[in-house]
Amino acid sequence: MKEKVDIIVRGEYILTMTDAEEPIHDGAVVIKDTSIVDVGPEEAITERYDARRYIGGKGCAVIPGLVNTHTHAAMVYFRGLADDLPLKEWLEGHIWPAEQKFLGYDFVRDATELACLEMLSSGITLFNDMYFFEDASADAIRKAGMRAVLGTGILDFPTVAASTMDEYFEKAEEFIKKYRDDELIKPSVAPHAPYTCSPETYKRAIRLAERYDVTVHTHLSETRWEVEEIGRRYGKSPVRHLESHGLLNERIVAAHCVWPDEEEIEILASRGVSVSHCLESNLKLSSGIAPVTDMLKKGVRVTFGTDGAASNNDLDIISEMSTAAKLHKAVSGDPTALSARDALLMATRWGAQALGLGERLGSIEAGKLADLVVINLSHPHLVPLYDIYSHIVYSAKSSDVETVIVNGRVVLNGGDSPNLDREEIFYKAGQWAERISKNS
Amino acid sequence: MKEKVDIIVRGEYILTMTDAEEPIHDGAVVIKDTSIVDVGPEEAITERYDARRYIGGKGCAVIPGLVNTHTHAAMVYFRGLADDLPLKEWLEGHIWPAEQKFLGYDFVRDATELACLEMLSSGITLFNDMYFFEDASADAIRKAGMRAVLGTGILDFPTVAASTMDEYFEKAEEFIKKYRDDELIKPSVAPHAPYTCSPETYKRAIRLAERYDVTVHTHLSETRWEVEEIGRRYGKSPVRHLESHGLLNERIVAAHCVWPDEEEIEILASRGVSVSHCLESNLKLSSGIAPVTDMLKKGVRVTFGTDGAASNNDLDIISEMSTAAKLHKAVSGDPTALSARDALLMATRWGAQALGLGERLGSIEAGKLADLVVINLSHPHLVPLYDIYSHIVYSAKSSDVETVIVNGRVVLNGGDSPNLDREEIFYKAGQWAERISKNS
Repeated sequence: MKEKVDIIVRGEYILTMTDAEEPIHDGAVVIKDTSIVDVGPEEAITERYDARRYIGGKGCAVIPGLVNTHTHAAMVYFRGLADDLPLKEWLEGHIWPAEQKFLGYDFVRDATELACLEMLSSGITLFNDMYFFEDASADAIRKAGMRAVLGTGILDFPTVAASTMDEYFEKAEEFIKKYRDDELIKPSVAPHAPYTCSPETYKRAIRLAERYDVTVHTHLSETRWEVEEIGRRYGKSPVRHLESHGLLNERIVAAHCVWPDEEEIEILASRGVSVSHCLESNLKLSSGIAPVTDMLKKGVRVTFGTDGAASNNDLDIISEMSTAAKLHKAVSGDPTALSARDALLMATRWGAQALGLGERLGSIEAGKLADLVVINLSHPHLVPLYDIYSHIVYSAKSSDVETVIVNGRVVLNGGDSPNLDREEIFYKAGQWAERISKNS
Repeated sequence: MKEKVDIIVRGEYILTMTDAEEPIHDGAVVIKDTSIVDVGPEEAITERYDARRYIGGKGCAVIPGLVNTHTHAAMVYFRGLADDLPLKEWLEGHIWPAEQKFLGYDFVRDATELACLEMLSSGITLFNDMYFFEDASADAIRKAGMRAVLGTGILDFPTVAASTMDEYFEKAEEFIKKYRDDELIKPSVAPHAPYTCSPETYKRAIRLAERYDVTVHTHLSETRWEVEEIGRRYGKSPVRHLESHGLLNERIVAAHCVWPDEEEIEILASRGVSVSHCLESNLKLSSGIAPVTDMLKKGVRVTFGTDGAASNNDLDIISEMSTAAKLHKAVSGDPTALSARDALLMATRWGAQALGLGERLGSIEAGKLADLVVINLSHPHLVPLYDIYSHIVYSAKSSDVETVIVNGRVVLNGGDSPNLDREEIFYKAGQWAERISKNS
């Protein structure tokens, strides 16, 4: 008697991203309820299991869901609002005024639905978000059926989120309590950056995160301006500054880290800080190029983030992998730097680990939660095929993503989401954009 | 009475890439036979013309066909054959042995069909090719119905193409005579590079090109190794070396130009040399980053090339534009460097000019040949829309290309080509790859 299961996902290549020998050729992944219960050669799997639904097959590759470790999802509504501008003019003249005027529950919920549709379409199943009105984000994300780690930005001055430091932290604690047992949403604490948060704010954030065993999401060493500003204020560069106050540990997901020097890279490695490399945003805003090859060599866990779509201008981890795996070869002068498989590890297993979810997510193995992406290889740009890792990183486009499964449920198939209304999302985006345009 | 025409292409945005005010909102392009006969607001156009076929409409952008100014199309069969390796090991251990063993008429024809399908799918209508068995390339390209400028590589040693210098040049002249009046194919002369061609070979190539009024396609200043090697041999850097022999003029399309110094950039500008910027290949092979911002400032005509898919690993000008427009902001430290519209000019009008075809191609205006690309904007990553140039360059993917018209004929629609058999192309690629794998 065959065992009844929910879904069998078949692939000409299964990229488990485990330390076992891989890829599995002509393999299959068995899903029961929310979890992966078996992985192996298709023949052996189909002898033992009978599924309600079969997905994938010849001409497909199956990879773990991609992890976006730094974004501001709702900023999709500012995509392309202002480009090719100096950072100060971009922020102060366009983005901040638009945020001031429009941010609210509805804006964030509607925008995050669009962001979820975009991320699912490009194979992202889990993202790490820092913004405002994160309750609204959570609503959109649960509706989409995808996963996220959410934290409301904490800054040393009043914003739409709170007026006092106590209010920021009361709300953060409330948010943690509300979501800590959620199946798809994980809360985090999100002190914005060293130039907007005092060491006391960071301390309080880390204490709160420790109390509830959640992650801390922050920006760190993004621009030369930040390095200079933190130097002026504290006499130290940003990583050393946080280190000197004992604020760095393995809970921290630090976005950007464009400007750490050699010693600071060693600090990040020894403290177990995870770095979210946001290459396309760093390039487009002219922030610089993070020393990824050095960070990897010294043992820093580097992962990929898209940052917000206002500075990227998309939410596409496949494109980040491709750009990074090529660019760091030129920057380091070493054509063997950042191999295709390492780039895919950064985008999957290491990403899940960075967000404190490595035990249950990030690779394809029995016992893990079923977050999978099926990639259709039958496209001219993926022919012929010698090395599947090379193809996924250097040749695939996010449009090759065919099916996405999160928590054992099919949440995207052939570009369509069973949970999200594409036409309604586009319509609402158009309506919001009209209002935003008139204001800017 | 309305005038009967062949095709009317409608677009919510028509990006003419002319110096006239643009984009045209809710516009239309009128095609009769091979040419554009009118462009303007849709209302005015539909009052005056009646077309056999209507293409595009709301939610579409229409741009000129993209121009790939440097590739080795048939190398698609080596895509992903060997990655993440030092250049010498990649070339000598993998690419050259495979070429030695497999290159021939059938290989190049079959591989070029795949390359044409890939390029059309990503909106490329015209490419500049340097390889061997260019007669085979021409057969595939004419079958696909796209345009190319083709030149057989000339080197100072025997290759599959010829055994002696006289044979190279006799064949080159024969090829020019055969194709110079072709509707879709233009011949060029292709001395390979300063390190494989003596100044005498370049002189002879330029004389031949002048005799028949065709372009010269060469590699120039691609790697540090080349700069050192040319320095050892001739006591000069590559651009100065060619300049000192009077070999630089406006016929030259120079691929790469990663390492020209300030003075060499001025030489390229004053001689009217066109540069093909092959960013993704330069990154992946760790060749370096070309000084594009400086070249543009000094008036060099910079265009985009994909190089061969063995070092990229795709043939995608939309991706090159996006990577370049972001990267050069970071490299130059100036977030206003390389604007989206300039990137699109490089990929269209300037590309056509570089290939000597600027009079008839590269922009959307009455009297030009009808090479057009329709981009579907109804995708989550293109919503909302504030600035169409920003979207095409920073957010669009080549998979958003919906319809491609070359010479007034629809050559791609919804991913399918009326002239190319996708399944047969994939099957042949698989067969060739199997043989190549066994050999390597």
